[in-house]
Amino acid sequence: MTDKIVTACVVTIGDEILSGRTKDANLSYIARHLNEIGVQVREARVICDVEEVIVATINEVRATYDYVFTTGGIGPTHDDITADSVAKAFGVEIGPHPEAVAVLEKHYEVTGQEFTTARQRMARIPHGGILIDNPISRAPGFQMENVFVMAGVPKIMQVMLDSLTDRLDGGAKMLSRTLTASIGEGAIAKPLAALQEAFETVSLGSYPYFKDKAYGTSIVMRSIDSARLDEAAQAVRALMVELGADPVEGELR
Amino acid sequence: MTDKIVTACVVTIGDEILSGRTKDANLSYIARHLNEIGVQVREARVICDVEEVIVATINEVRATYDYVFTTGGIGPTHDDITADSVAKAFGVEIGPHPEAVAVLEKHYEVTGQEFTTARQRMARIPHGGILIDNPISRAPGFQMENVFVMAGVPKIMQVMLDSLTDRLDGGAKMLSRTLTASIGEGAIAKPLAALQEAFETVSLGSYPYFKDKAYGTSIVMRSIDSARLDEAAQAVRALMVELGADPVEGELR
Repeated sequence: MTDKIVTACVVTIGDEILSGRTKDANLSYIARHLNEIGVQVREARVICDVEEVIVATINEVRATYDYVFTTGGIGPTHDDITADSVAKAFGVEIGPHPEAVAVLEKHYEVTGQEFTTARQRMARIPHGGILIDNPISRAPGFQMENVFVMAGVPKIMQVMLDSLTDRLDGGAKMLSRTLTASIGEGAIAKPLAALQEAFETVSLGSYPYFKDKAYGTSIVMRSIDSARLDEAAQAVRALMVELGADPVEGELR
Repeated sequence: MTDKIVTACVVTIGDEILSGRTKDANLSYIARHLNEIGVQVREARVICDVEEVIVATINEVRATYDYVFTTGGIGPTHDDITADSVAKAFGVEIGPHPEAVAVLEKHYEVTGQEFTTARQRMARIPHGGILIDNPISRAPGFQMENVFVMAGVPKIMQVMLDSLTDRLDGGAKMLSRTLTASIGEGAIAKPLAALQEAFETVSLGSYPYFKDKAYGTSIVMRSIDSARLDEAAQAVRALMVELGADPVEGELR
């Protein structure tokens, strides 16, 4: 068992999520996918399509986390400014990438569409960028050092994430178990705090819910140590039973 | 028509969203609610339950945006550290707030539950904090200057948001219209860029979709000027028709 902790930040670029019109579907997918290979998402940001904001954000988070994953803003339209902004963040030029041009040329030839100037925008990659394959619509993402730039459309983001996963060097996988019971947080808080002290290597998270006029709490236990995690789950279950509840594995929300 | 732009940042505090287990339901609700009163969410962050991260984030965003709204971490358990972290961010002490104590004492008396030490934690408010009423479970949120601290449970967050809305000084309301057509982004990109130049006060966002093996694009137009917005919508509709499509109002995704 490795105990190396590898961290990541997800940056969602686009006004649509911030306007409330579109709900983000990518963060939870990316977080679960990365956890499978031992990369833990520690922060997520949603920012608007403004170059100086993208540049500042990328430069801040790439210095803080092992990996950064961006989604959105790499299409052919005037509001797709992610590639240019990432080039600026890294202080490099941007231009047509021969391999990206070839892939797109062939794609539009096969589909009988014109490889317009607008579509050629999607072959512009910051110098030094390594392409990320996109088997669906072909326009590639790219990697600059520890920053991975992906599309925002969920299906395309997902195939890009698959394409790039081999390049990631994961660490310990965060394991988790959840127990849920109809106990108010206030009733379990004190003994739970004592359990948290007893289980240093397991993080005990308490998540209250309020559904159909009933309260309850899910206790989420997370650790990279599976034996210790199971011991913690046993202790939490015993505590819930002691408090008169009938705990179930998993969440109710 | 006011043209004052009032901005906000939403900070979601909690490991659960970052683990991918729980999908955030609060951001889009808050963004739509705030837009109704002329406050525009310009950034959102999801951060973990770590004091130094919460302190640094709060201090960064409260200096950048007109308003900050946090959700999560104000319950009675050991992992609820938002109130303490906000106190530290503002450099003030934290302690029992007489009004919060009174509200909770009464609540637990009425419901026949014990007002335990753990539950008393929920009455601890940073000095100078103004309470935010919580008609559901009573434990209040609070406001420190331009920072509003709310619960993470969606139903409770929503009543808190209602409670505090009167305190906000909104600006121009962002209006929007959306037209969707089965046109690839690459086909509409060039004339759309020209339209964007013609309509300086309207932001034209292009959002591609890929569904049931078909591509298409939603053009979202946003402006605080309703007349100009309608003109832009008319122009975008004409462009889509010219490109051979049959545009519909709204999004298909």
